Amino acid sequence: MKKEKLDQLLEKLSLEEKVGQLVQLGPMFFSEGGEITGPMQAMDMTKTELYQIGSVLGTHTKEEVKNIQSTYLEHSAHGIPLMFMADVIHGYETIFPIPLALASSFDPSIVKEMARLSAKEATSAGVHVTFSPMADLVRDPRWGRVLESNGEDPLLNATLIKAYVEGYQGDSLLDPETLAACVKHFIGYGEAEGGRDYNTVDISDLVLYQNHLPAFKAAIDAGVKLVMTSFNTIRGIPATGNRWLLQEVLRRDLNFDGVIISDWASVHELINHRVAADKRDATFKAANAGVEIDMMTDNYQHHLVDLVKEGLISEEFINQAVMHVLQLKNDLGLFEDPYRSLDKHPEKEIIEVELRAESRRIASQSMVLLENQQAILPLQKEDQLALIGPLAESHDLLGAWSWIGKTEQSVTISEGLLSKTKQIEMVKDRHDYVKLKYVDKVIVALGEHSEETGEGGSKTEITLPQEQIDLLKEVYKWNQNIIVVLINGRPLDLTEIKMYSRAILEAWFPGSEAGNAIADVLYGDVNPSGKLPMSFPRSVGQVPLTYNMMSTGRAINEYNHTQKYVSKYLDNENTALYPFGYGLTYSNVKLSEVEVIDKGDNVTVNYTLINPSMLDAQEVVQLYVKDMVTEVARPERELKYFEKVFISAGASKKCSVNLTSEDIAYYHPDLIKKADDGTIELYLGLDSQAPLIGSWHYKA
Amino acid sequence: MKKEKLDQLLEKLSLEEKVGQLVQLGPMFFSEGGEITGPMQAMDMTKTELYQIGSVLGTHTKEEVKNIQSTYLEHSAHGIPLMFMADVIHGYETIFPIPLALASSFDPSIVKEMARLSAKEATSAGVHVTFSPMADLVRDPRWGRVLESNGEDPLLNATLIKAYVEGYQGDSLLDPETLAACVKHFIGYGEAEGGRDYNTVDISDLVLYQNHLPAFKAAIDAGVKLVMTSFNTIRGIPATGNRWLLQEVLRRDLNFDGVIISDWASVHELINHRVAADKRDATFKAANAGVEIDMMTDNYQHHLVDLVKEGLISEEFINQAVMHVLQLKNDLGLFEDPYRSLDKHPEKEIIEVELRAESRRIASQSMVLLENQQAILPLQKEDQLALIGPLAESHDLLGAWSWIGKTEQSVTISEGLLSKTKQIEMVKDRHDYVKLKYVDKVIVALGEHSEETGEGGSKTEITLPQEQIDLLKEVYKWNQNIIVVLINGRPLDLTEIKMYSRAILEAWFPGSEAGNAIADVLYGDVNPSGKLPMSFPRSVGQVPLTYNMMSTGRAINEYNHTQKYVSKYLDNENTALYPFGYGLTYSNVKLSEVEVIDKGDNVTVNYTLINPSMLDAQEVVQLYVKDMVTEVARPERELKYFEKVFISAGASKKCSVNLTSEDIAYYHPDLIKKADDGTIELYLGLDSQAPLIGSWHYKA
Repeated sequence: MKKEKLDQLLEKLSLEEKVGQLVQLGPMFFSEGGEITGPMQAMDMTKTELYQIGSVLGTHTKEEVKNIQSTYLEHSAHGIPLMFMADVIHGYETIFPIPLALASSFDPSIVKEMARLSAKEATSAGVHVTFSPMADLVRDPRWGRVLESNGEDPLLNATLIKAYVEGYQGDSLLDPETLAACVKHFIGYGEAEGGRDYNTVDISDLVLYQNHLPAFKAAIDAGVKLVMTSFNTIRGIPATGNRWLLQEVLRRDLNFDGVIISDWASVHELINHRVAADKRDATFKAANAGVEIDMMTDNYQHHLVDLVKEGLISEEFINQAVMHVLQLKNDLGLFEDPYRSLDKHPEKEIIEVELRAESRRIASQSMVLLENQQAILPLQKEDQLALIGPLAESHDLLGAWSWIGKTEQSVTISEGLLSKTKQIEMVKDRHDYVKLKYVDKVIVALGEHSEETGEGGSKTEITLPQEQIDLLKEVYKWNQNIIVVLINGRPLDLTEIKMYSRAILEAWFPGSEAGNAIADVLYGDVNPSGKLPMSFPRSVGQVPLTYNMMSTGRAINEYNHTQKYVSKYLDNENTALYPFGYGLTYSNVKLSEVEVIDKGDNVTVNYTLINPSMLDAQEVVQLYVKDMVTEVARPERELKYFEKVFISAGASKKCSVNLTSEDIAYYHPDLIKKADDGTIELYLGLDSQAPLIGSWHYKA
Repeated sequence: MKKEKLDQLLEKLSLEEKVGQLVQLGPMFFSEGGEITGPMQAMDMTKTELYQIGSVLGTHTKEEVKNIQSTYLEHSAHGIPLMFMADVIHGYETIFPIPLALASSFDPSIVKEMARLSAKEATSAGVHVTFSPMADLVRDPRWGRVLESNGEDPLLNATLIKAYVEGYQGDSLLDPETLAACVKHFIGYGEAEGGRDYNTVDISDLVLYQNHLPAFKAAIDAGVKLVMTSFNTIRGIPATGNRWLLQEVLRRDLNFDGVIISDWASVHELINHRVAADKRDATFKAANAGVEIDMMTDNYQHHLVDLVKEGLISEEFINQAVMHVLQLKNDLGLFEDPYRSLDKHPEKEIIEVELRAESRRIASQSMVLLENQQAILPLQKEDQLALIGPLAESHDLLGAWSWIGKTEQSVTISEGLLSKTKQIEMVKDRHDYVKLKYVDKVIVALGEHSEETGEGGSKTEITLPQEQIDLLKEVYKWNQNIIVVLINGRPLDLTEIKMYSRAILEAWFPGSEAGNAIADVLYGDVNPSGKLPMSFPRSVGQVPLTYNMMSTGRAINEYNHTQKYVSKYLDNENTALYPFGYGLTYSNVKLSEVEVIDKGDNVTVNYTLINPSMLDAQEVVQLYVKDMVTEVARPERELKYFEKVFISAGASKKCSVNLTSEDIAYYHPDLIKKADDGTIELYLGLDSQAPLIGSWHYKA
């Protein structure tokens, strides 16, 4: 549909019909065929109102979408199709690794492929829009939702967010296998106090701009269609009612021209925050701030018309909001075909085969090898193995936000290993420990339950349960050739686990093909290449802990660390147990021939990677900078470049990276981003403890 | 000296002499009689420069002050006396309870008396200025320096800060028994990330104004003479180099007209923060921001003259800064008598007798009774007791920042108890546990070492050491009539301690008379009346945790707490183990006849306190408000009134409190403080979980 036809359509709509387009409800509202019972009664909605709403969230099947759309269009006055949205976070029916695992790949192509495939499967079930990616920068492992994030680094986060948007949206949303993306949660949700979900956020404007904006900017620059507001406060005002945030920052500074949607009931929750007196006031505050779609409450439905009639909310805002919604429907081709993506896909079975294979590959690329003492890994074909632990035969491998995925269809660790070897004993009974001493290596599968992670999954302790640690210790008495495989959704305190393991494989929640991917990595069919996107602290008492903390006036160093009046803890180190960017391969890849060519306004770093092993490998090379004098305090070091490089067995490869003023620009006290002339130290390596390789004397 | 004479004096000074007044060094610089060795050599200082400096910090004795002052004046060109400053934090030679304990008294008269007596003793040793009080609002028990604070509540903090200033400064600084006070640390130091001392601070302007300013405002309104800048960043810039903070907030908004002094070496540390390139740049940034005295570095000494000559720092600033210093010296009467307070005091022994008695009284008022099951306390004269634990006979009872105090002269817990009873067995050997079952009650003295607390005393764990918990459990096997006495400097995780105790007395670090004061409380000679000024979390994984958290959009309540998508932890409660404002007496005092008289622009609450016991008692009545609708999210409840009320045994007392718009004014998004019309819920009780007593419908 052309823009002028959209304009004509808008003109035809009554105020009530316009407001309807700004309302989003769940499919249960349609389940009674429009009868005023159940949810509709609870929300005091009329049938007329129901057939004016603009979008639906959370359908489960293609048939459900088809039915709701056709019933709706029969009753709808102007034939504006419904738009269907859903939480397609790391796969739809076929589940890929959790986002934190995908981030561990340090590989935007992996993320993009995951998004493309998720879109393919979700659109075959009638979904148009996904509430993904989550761009919240995080730094507190107590927060369950770190699972859904890209971790603690602004550059990694922004790079992967761009890949998500490109993967979901493809080249054109008219392609029926693409999804419109909704970046969330604008903004700062990852800073929830105490790591407690939905808790207050308090950050300075500087941190907002410097740390939290870049990933949203990346999404918007990549053409993301929707932005979801967050539950939390910024400058003391919940994002959903924060006009400064949505108008000055999102619309003006980030130049966003798509749909702004609330989070689930977050318009109504302005009342709980006590910044709105009642539903009418909540509606006013949200609409005045610029929220365009009210998700799952009747606030807009029942109060926005009156507010416009009374002149408190301008009709201009309503028109703009509705046009954003109509434009998105048009971008998706819904006016031409309200059933858009249905029946245009390959057979379900064909899609599944492709997705399963890719899920296995992607999962194997997302695991992080934390320890591998005396090269106990990879497993050898002749190894006699034992497998034990609560995750050994568990199907709980998909992780949170995999609601369409079928847990029982995931490949367990034991199934994965059995497909590689018959020389493995499954130790089901804890009293069978004594047999263990006769095997070469013991695989101990430990971890979290998926319900302990994700949204609403905040915890005060980040250790594994004591019974798991006791099990590990018990095994250790009999056989010390222990390989721990971890299934979990957050950085854990592994201080004790480390003491009793020779190898630790952080597998995260790997998704539908979990067991196969784990077996691929353990046997070396895939050389592990993941890196940690979040620091693993030594204890919960260290949090928040990230690699990119500020210098402070009394930073500890090798000379002063025994002094009292330096910035340290008396009872533990300042450092992480496993730092950001850390992860092993089986290949012991080396960096050499590092060369810094300082050209004043830019710098080139050349380096060579050498793979001395008999296995093909991938290494994630990381370049960090430290700006020696700045107007505001800046991190000790900041990641400015990473690249996952493939190097054949026994080969070497020359690579190069160039940094320019953009890479060292930072927000000044006036919130203007620019680079200062001065010295920048450069650190190149394979994790965030990379060594100094030289300096760049930047001059514009 | 009259103002015009000060002006004439200022005019006579050379630029170098002026800069000298802005330099503060330690007494060691004078220890070699001005010879260029040791510290002077290290700082590259000349003898001329030494005899131009303005102040000295950290002298130990009256004789030292006398010698330095007389030598200085012999060499000084204009006869401007030195000013002597020191950390007189909770007493000088006679040590009072740590500030966090003093705050537990919830009694400004106690704090004021402590400050008055400290000043008396410190001035007798020649001190003119104390680096106290510390007004940093705190909320992270990992931070060792919570010991030096008034806890987590802005009203309690501001009220006690005013009392400190009044106590130190008296009616006139010409009184030789008064000290000039220096409020510190401006500002936000209490928010050090991860509770790690000297770490980065990031807070919004709103939190800065709402939570952190009030106590500084209280100090300034009470006439405090100096403000010390903090080590931390605000808006990304260290306070010591933050012009906005010192000029717009401190000078303009708070209207401060006294001396601004750096913290120890914090001018130089601008280099470590990497916001200054070198000493010259650090000098420029600090002076440009408005720091007037450079404590313990040579930055000002060696670079300020040049910066003025080059026009980068105005002579006007220098003149103003020097005039502030000269004015303070004049306020102290130093021009009339450079030896001011020396030899004008009562004999040392007489002072000591008074201070010891008052230290004992004040300590007994500062302890918090956390548990008293089956009224195991107070002890009865006939009780057969045992005393055990690492703190039983320890003299480590003074706490951090008691550098002049003599640890070995403190009264131990065993000495205190022995002065009350002979029926007590001292269990020195842990293998003597078995004897314990024959006594009526066992007192177990547990706690922290003073080196684990205070500045530089940050910890990741806030439990007591495992060996202390094991000891407690061992005792419990033999005798369950356990009274735990705690000596410590921060809120601890007492979850396990609580399980094995009938009574817990939080004695903090009580000071020189510790044992006597503890015995007074245990035997009921003093009815305990302290209340917690900081929440005691259930575990370190809950921090930061305060009673005055924001509502959030998904606060848990009795109806929804079993749901997943609410703001909670899966593995622990949201609440504190012992909340702010909590503390027991032996008297079970009751509130009754509570009456709310809503007069629109103000409200009166009348109440009656009933003491049903045979002991005189003091109770701290607390009134909290909850503003039902505000422009920015506000705390679930906020303390707006507290009063420590004395009620005779068996008596009752009628009391009253009035709140006006000032009590409910809050900072709006534009940082203007005002009250909104609307409903305010009122909660009156004996701790922060006080029940709702009614509403105030405020209308201006």
